Amino acid sequence: MASGSAACIKIMTRQQLIQQIREKQSFLCVGLDPDIKKIPQCVIDECKAELAADDEEYDESLAIILFNQYIIDATAPYCVAYKPNLAFYESLGANGLVAYEETVAYIRENYPNHFIIADAKRGDIGNTSKMYARSFFEGDAQADAVTVAPYMGEDSVSPFLEYDGKWVILLALTSNKGSHDFQLMQDANGERLFEKVLRISQQWGNKDNMMYVVGATQGQMFEDIRKIVPDHFLLVPGVGAQGGSLQEVCKYGMTKDCGLLVNSSRGIIFASNGKDFADVAAQKAKELQEQMAVELAKI
Amino acid sequence: MASGSAACIKIMTRQQLIQQIREKQSFLCVGLDPDIKKIPQCVIDECKAELAADDEEYDESLAIILFNQYIIDATAPYCVAYKPNLAFYESLGANGLVAYEETVAYIRENYPNHFIIADAKRGDIGNTSKMYARSFFEGDAQADAVTVAPYMGEDSVSPFLEYDGKWVILLALTSNKGSHDFQLMQDANGERLFEKVLRISQQWGNKDNMMYVVGATQGQMFEDIRKIVPDHFLLVPGVGAQGGSLQEVCKYGMTKDCGLLVNSSRGIIFASNGKDFADVAAQKAKELQEQMAVELAKI
Repeated sequence: MASGSAACIKIMTRQQLIQQIREKQSFLCVGLDPDIKKIPQCVIDECKAELAADDEEYDESLAIILFNQYIIDATAPYCVAYKPNLAFYESLGANGLVAYEETVAYIRENYPNHFIIADAKRGDIGNTSKMYARSFFEGDAQADAVTVAPYMGEDSVSPFLEYDGKWVILLALTSNKGSHDFQLMQDANGERLFEKVLRISQQWGNKDNMMYVVGATQGQMFEDIRKIVPDHFLLVPGVGAQGGSLQEVCKYGMTKDCGLLVNSSRGIIFASNGKDFADVAAQKAKELQEQMAVELAKI
Repeated sequence: MASGSAACIKIMTRQQLIQQIREKQSFLCVGLDPDIKKIPQCVIDECKAELAADDEEYDESLAIILFNQYIIDATAPYCVAYKPNLAFYESLGANGLVAYEETVAYIRENYPNHFIIADAKRGDIGNTSKMYARSFFEGDAQADAVTVAPYMGEDSVSPFLEYDGKWVILLALTSNKGSHDFQLMQDANGERLFEKVLRISQQWGNKDNMMYVVGATQGQMFEDIRKIVPDHFLLVPGVGAQGGSLQEVCKYGMTKDCGLLVNSSRGIIFASNGKDFADVAAQKAKELQEQMAVELAKI
């Protein structure tokens, strides 16, 4: 979210994303949700020691930056995308937002071919969404994509689509229990709310600048979704800690271009809280990548 | 969003809010949406001069803090609530978030009886919404209420309701054109999405910890809304720049306890961009307060 010139920041097109997935045999997105209460003590100790050596003061946000860098270095060979969720940064106030910016900048600098998703679930009236779009898509720490909530309709989403080369990832059918409260609501013609979101939002963007969030816990619903958006990429959270199955997601949701970014957060980044946390995170990411390679071989 | 102890921060109950409305003869909420491009030049010049005198560097976020303080001092006698919209702060990065925190802290310190609404329209899966709740409801710069988007259902909203004395303001029927895209969707029984949100969310909270956003542009729809939530407070944006009518909102939406917080942002804070900006903001707020007194006399 830092301001400043960023003319050299590369964009990622749909074709480039597909190319990355083919090269790495992976459609894994690693969720960078660094709950300060779960960060391994060894990272906190190292951070404090480094700061003490420089006579600087410890701040939790600095431990988060260090933790993320370890996780990114460990998992980069096995994933094509990173998804920091803003809530985990904002909960630490302004310093937390610096940690977000530093994390995005670290990926940009060291892993320029990784796709960066700001998981923010924003959405407001037009002139306000425009400000949010500026936050995530301008400056040196800009993401490739931002998640957006559809409730407020077209003018809450379209300001994000005005940036060439940037993506909106719209919530459609989420992974949580509460997804049943409203998203499955059905009109007199049998069309459900999430289906309406998928259908109507195609008037606002296209498969080159929009994706949709569909939870891995939704199983066969992917078949219904593919009837409406046969080609769009889907961002799929909920594999791992939330109980979704990678194989089921692929069975019902994969396209000839893959069409999936499957996210795992806690299942990778907090798989161990010992000194081996980065190695274990790498191992967990590698296991998912290998399962993904098997699925990719089928298309 | 700053962390730290905040045991002395007072809460505002429904009864206390009603009391404030009666005393001030106002149910005005001033929206603190300080678009840096619209802030009067005189504020920017003053901010730069002050900083230069102290040999400190200018930053846009500092001009925003100063601007907000002028607006708050000018309008405090005529309003009962302030509503900073996070988008306008986040667009300036981490420093912008400091400006948000400073603004909230300024209101807390100088106007402790004003209700503070963090207009953030957040909402995510349970463990993530919990982090957002921490951002807005803990620390020294805590708000009284946060706006939440309902799309993801119960577990995305309930973490915000776990704070005693804090409020959730759930989006129901918003003021923008896009509100027609999904919020008016109707099921086979004729119930519309925003009505479903109003009805179902009453299982999660009550009139002492929940309000709803209903746009002033929605006119007679307030009648339908009052059938479902006869007593809840409604936060009503859209008077002024967006074209909603205060009289119509009151005619169809007011209850015996008032039951309304009517917001105006641009129509007050950017009513003048000259040196008289604070006086004009006060005048605009006073005009609305006087219209509100007329409406309050009817109940």
